[in-house]
Amino acid sequence: VFDAVEDLMAENAGEVPSISDIAERAGVNPTSLYRRWRTPETLAIDVAVERLMRDFPIPDTGTLRGDLEGWAMNVTRSLNGKKSLALLRILVGMQTSEAPGRERLSALIRRGEEMQSVLARAQARGEATPTLPDVLEIVLAPIYLHILFFGPIREPGYAARLVDRLFALTPAKRGAVKKGG
Amino acid sequence: VFDAVEDLMAENAGEVPSISDIAERAGVNPTSLYRRWRTPETLAIDVAVERLMRDFPIPDTGTLRGDLEGWAMNVTRSLNGKKSLALLRILVGMQTSEAPGRERLSALIRRGEEMQSVLARAQARGEATPTLPDVLEIVLAPIYLHILFFGPIREPGYAARLVDRLFALTPAKRGAVKKGG
Repeated sequence: VFDAVEDLMAENAGEVPSISDIAERAGVNPTSLYRRWRTPETLAIDVAVERLMRDFPIPDTGTLRGDLEGWAMNVTRSLNGKKSLALLRILVGMQTSEAPGRERLSALIRRGEEMQSVLARAQARGEATPTLPDVLEIVLAPIYLHILFFGPIREPGYAARLVDRLFALTPAKRGAVKKGG
Repeated sequence: VFDAVEDLMAENAGEVPSISDIAERAGVNPTSLYRRWRTPETLAIDVAVERLMRDFPIPDTGTLRGDLEGWAMNVTRSLNGKKSLALLRILVGMQTSEAPGRERLSALIRRGEEMQSVLARAQARGEATPTLPDVLEIVLAPIYLHILFFGPIREPGYAARLVDRLFALTPAKRGAVKKGG
């Protein structure tokens, strides 16, 4: 199904195909697609996040700062492109009534879990570790705001600057402050 | 024209009316509306921001922290409502090609200028003063992200917490640090 969506979008200048076209190409029953995703937009977003996770896993650089800088730069690079931006606009433009239940966006949930395990890995190493909401509020939200309202991000150090701000607000691990504590 | 848009939206359950309906109600030439705003959505957003500025001017509490907390709480309250949220979704959902030039959203520009003058007032009083981009990135962006992705903000201290974070990142005025400096 995911391959069918990608192929149809590539053939169609990034336009979101209909559920029936996707079902036909994938050789599945359209009813099952409707049941799981409700709209072709929800399915397209799920596919895009899936592709993002495959092409840009959150890097494992040995430090949380390195991991988050790599992740934030990849998010910026991806959303600076037309296709991902169009899908982000669809996602945020959905009326609440038609917005997908979060359970329909399984790839987005797995992306959140991937970030949670990156944070847990850092904590286990004894690094100062922000919470997931802090990462979303301090790093992701300004990237989205900038791209949605002012267009692509051209400032080279933008993502790194946001990650610096995140760490400036994250208290050092207790163990690192009190010697032997 | 603005009254006509508000009246038509109130009569129509918040639906954005057509340019020709607005022109007819306001007794103006539709061509002039097309020329200035291009789409009824752009006009509707301009009207909404105009109303926001009239109903919720940025408060003048005597301290920048008080001003920004009042502003952030008003933004949250407004976007927790269905009508403003629907317009925000329209604004962020617009494709770049059809997105209004910023010069078409005159009320949004005036709102930015209003915030600039609030910041200038605080600076003149000798207070620690963040930049406008910092206010947008640290306070406004998380409010938008939360409301667009996770729904209305129910946490009572949310806006104040973001303003605290903004000031935690804003260096104290040099004059306030060096006595007599």
